[in-house]
Amino acid sequence: MSNTANTPPAAFNGGAAYVKGRFVPMEEAVLPVTDWGFTRSDVVYDVVHVTNGCFFRLQDHLDRFEWAMARRRLRPAEDRAAIEAVLHRCVALSGLRDAYVNMTCSRGRPRVHGSRRPADCDNHLIAYAVPWIDVIPKQVQERGAHLWIAGLPRVPDASVDPRVKNYQWSDLTTGLLEAHDHDFDTAILCDADGYVTEGPGFNVFIVRDGRVLTPDRGSLHGITRKTALEICSELGIEAAVTAIPRTWLEEADEVFTTTTAGGIMPVSRVAGRILGNDRPGPISMKIRDIYWRWHEDGRHATPVRPLEPVAS
Amino acid sequence: MSNTANTPPAAFNGGAAYVKGRFVPMEEAVLPVTDWGFTRSDVVYDVVHVTNGCFFRLQDHLDRFEWAMARRRLRPAEDRAAIEAVLHRCVALSGLRDAYVNMTCSRGRPRVHGSRRPADCDNHLIAYAVPWIDVIPKQVQERGAHLWIAGLPRVPDASVDPRVKNYQWSDLTTGLLEAHDHDFDTAILCDADGYVTEGPGFNVFIVRDGRVLTPDRGSLHGITRKTALEICSELGIEAAVTAIPRTWLEEADEVFTTTTAGGIMPVSRVAGRILGNDRPGPISMKIRDIYWRWHEDGRHATPVRPLEPVAS
Ligand SMILES: Cc1ncc(COP(=O)(O)O)c(C=O)c1O
Ligand SMILES: Cc1ncc(COP(=O)(O)O)c(C=O)c1O
Repeated sequence: MSNTANTPPAAFNGGAAYVKGRFVPMEEAVLPVTDWGFTRSDVVYDVVHVTNGCFFRLQDHLDRFEWAMARRRLRPAEDRAAIEAVLHRCVALSGLRDAYVNMTCSRGRPRVHGSRRPADCDNHLIAYAVPWIDVIPKQVQERGAHLWIAGLPRVPDASVDPRVKNYQWSDLTTGLLEAHDHDFDTAILCDADGYVTEGPGFNVFIVRDGRVLTPDRGSLHGITRKTALEICSELGIEAAVTAIPRTWLEEADEVFTTTTAGGIMPVSRVAGRILGNDRPGPISMKIRDIYWRWHEDGRHATPVRPLEPVAS
Repeated sequence: MSNTANTPPAAFNGGAAYVKGRFVPMEEAVLPVTDWGFTRSDVVYDVVHVTNGCFFRLQDHLDRFEWAMARRRLRPAEDRAAIEAVLHRCVALSGLRDAYVNMTCSRGRPRVHGSRRPADCDNHLIAYAVPWIDVIPKQVQERGAHLWIAGLPRVPDASVDPRVKNYQWSDLTTGLLEAHDHDFDTAILCDADGYVTEGPGFNVFIVRDGRVLTPDRGSLHGITRKTALEICSELGIEAAVTAIPRTWLEEADEVFTTTTAGGIMPVSRVAGRILGNDRPGPISMKIRDIYWRWHEDGRHATPVRPLEPVAS
């Protein structure tokens, strides 16, 4: 029977990947253990989400991904239009209406055995769409997350540029382990000068004297952070990207975190201090509501392209 | 025909790996793209070499690997004796007399979809034996390597412990790219205070007023570094692990680098300055000769165990 319907094979149900130029089920999405993306973490990535069948701010994510690849001199075989098409197809194959969509470019392996030169490697694109993941679980978001302030300093921007979205999470992971040891949900790191940076998978905001502030250093320029700032602007709330000393975080009226995989996630405790009435604060909740309303309104939405009918 | 001989299948020729509890040819040694060893570089590793059928300082490498795993709270299913047996078998299967032998422990993936807790993951061991690789090519070692001093600071020890052998090479890779841009072979990084640390895959030594010095910070405690220090002691050369300001490197009488995958590798130029007569220095060469003599003498040697005959 010819397969002219646009129904993907069942193997893709719930997750589809693109590896080495082919679309494969998630179980087949693998990387050689000698790939420098693994053995040197020589890799950049981005994550965009799909809600109700639409990408949110897809062009912003592609812009950031392209910028990061250029910064690390990574160039996959696929150009931007091809990368975009790959993301659409991964989601369409997966059949997911709400998805976490990853795009990764790895250095790959040298063409010559034994070469240690990055320029000798064939860079390659990896992408996949899997079911939506919340960086902070939904029920924790409801009561407000408990944020630990990690004891170790964030890797400085001068050594590893945090604007290049990367997998070098050792300092963030150490903070996360500390948080869990103290029965906190997750962690925020400060830099060596005592300024607030970010956490394992999210940016942070504080509300101080009615102003909404987010760190100007040690942080990814999050797309959700950008949306939060735009929402503040629409609401007429004063907002700024600025240096935030640790004490401001500890004394904040409200705290919330932002990430693609979770959106606007309120915090109710910081390092033992209980904020407000141990619940998400009103400004955080307002921004969160509008964030999801923008999704419903179709703002920044790109509908996932349906699968092309395939001739048998 | 029953296979009672101890000849491995041809697929293992030239490289054998251990992944997910099974011995496989190198082409099958792969990792899921969602493994946290990749997506968070949440992984530690070690590399030991085999020369002429014998491991060199195998117990030292296993000690360091076990220590690193404990520091990152990684625990694979295999205990130390099992890990050691895996390494022996990878080399034996590969049929290699000279090999680069990698052992890696990765965080793995959470047992629960969507969990962000390291404690929810099944950690796993990866190992492989492949043909010997020189971090600095042999012909470059002969003329002496040209070392670039990188413009960016090494990630500080307080953020990522360099004694835990890790794959977070972004700063080292940036240094390497800079070096290649300037037609240098490889790079050394200094820390933010201007002290010498290490390079992409090796420790560094300087000879200054007849003393042999290596950095006390920002560096892996290299096993080859340890051997170099022992050789100095045998030769009655004064040696020390100490703070080395960048100017000492620039003004050094001799410079050499050390690594498992290469041994003692002399340097003839540092950041544009030509050392001695643009050739490896005499003390470096002496230490290098003894390093290889110790291999011939069977010092620190562990013969690779032959394959057990397998019943058909
Ligand atoms: C370290 C880090 N900071 C911040 C963010 C939030 O960025 P975005 O809002 O673009 O998802 C992420 C997202 O994964 C992250 O990994
Ligand atoms: C960053 C770094 N420093 C130093 C070394 C040298 O250590 P060893 O002599 O134990 O191989 C290595 C080896 O790979 C390394 O990766």
